[in-house]
Amino acid sequence: MTAYDTNNVFAKILRGEIPSTKVYEDDVVLAFMDVMPQTEGHVLVIPKVAARTLLDMPPHSTGPFFERVQLVAAAVCKAMKADGLTLRQHNEPAGGQIVFHMHMHVLPRWDGVELRPHTGKMEKPEVLADYAERIRAAF
Amino acid sequence: MTAYDTNNVFAKILRGEIPSTKVYEDDVVLAFMDVMPQTEGHVLVIPKVAARTLLDMPPHSTGPFFERVQLVAAAVCKAMKADGLTLRQHNEPAGGQIVFHMHMHVLPRWDGVELRPHTGKMEKPEVLADYAERIRAAF
Repeated sequence: MTAYDTNNVFAKILRGEIPSTKVYEDDVVLAFMDVMPQTEGHVLVIPKVAARTLLDMPPHSTGPFFERVQLVAAAVCKAMKADGLTLRQHNEPAGGQIVFHMHMHVLPRWDGVELRPHTGKMEKPEVLADYAERIRAAF
Repeated sequence: MTAYDTNNVFAKILRGEIPSTKVYEDDVVLAFMDVMPQTEGHVLVIPKVAARTLLDMPPHSTGPFFERVQLVAAAVCKAMKADGLTLRQHNEPAGGQIVFHMHMHVLPRWDGVELRPHTGKMEKPEVLADYAERIRAAF
């Protein structure tokens, strides 16, 4: 198991050292808008426990984490008037992971609309703020 | 919410009406080899509760389901000597869902190896049986 790096971007977001556009927070998770979204309304859900990947999560923390993922997914679907949802979770570079703090991608989907590739293009903060406001209202 | 169709393929697998190559089973989940794998060792984890999508799962069943997903993911990673894992979960046709019983894809990954597209090509039963045996031994 590779050691958890406390200076990864999501750890900094959890500590408030880097801002994020939050949609949900409790003692277990933080959910916020992906700044390089693959679709409108792309949200990330991260556990507050320091875990690099799904396999590193303490087993007692896994259930509560995914209960929140389900809540967030429902709110995203409702707020974004989505026809469906795609959830993705990447572990280690071979699995597609880029930031090494466990996270779940929640991607609202619409019939006939493909996911955008990871272009690295940053979304405008005011666009993310608008989606986040809608999603927060949908819980 | 679209009604759950009790004649979907995974419901038939749960009832034993269609065979599957099992890797794990308890009172909460069944995990088995995907017959049209996108990578070697591609496993599906399905809840025993009748839920069309993640959003239809009774909230009390969500945590226990994902605790098993974590267990299965660890076994798949170990058995397949994977460098990483990709997890995917599709909801409704817009989200990429094809079989309408909630399921999680567990995809072992290796550095430099891309996922195969959904070609619809069936894997040989003896190949799936070999992977399943290795994965069962890794719990």
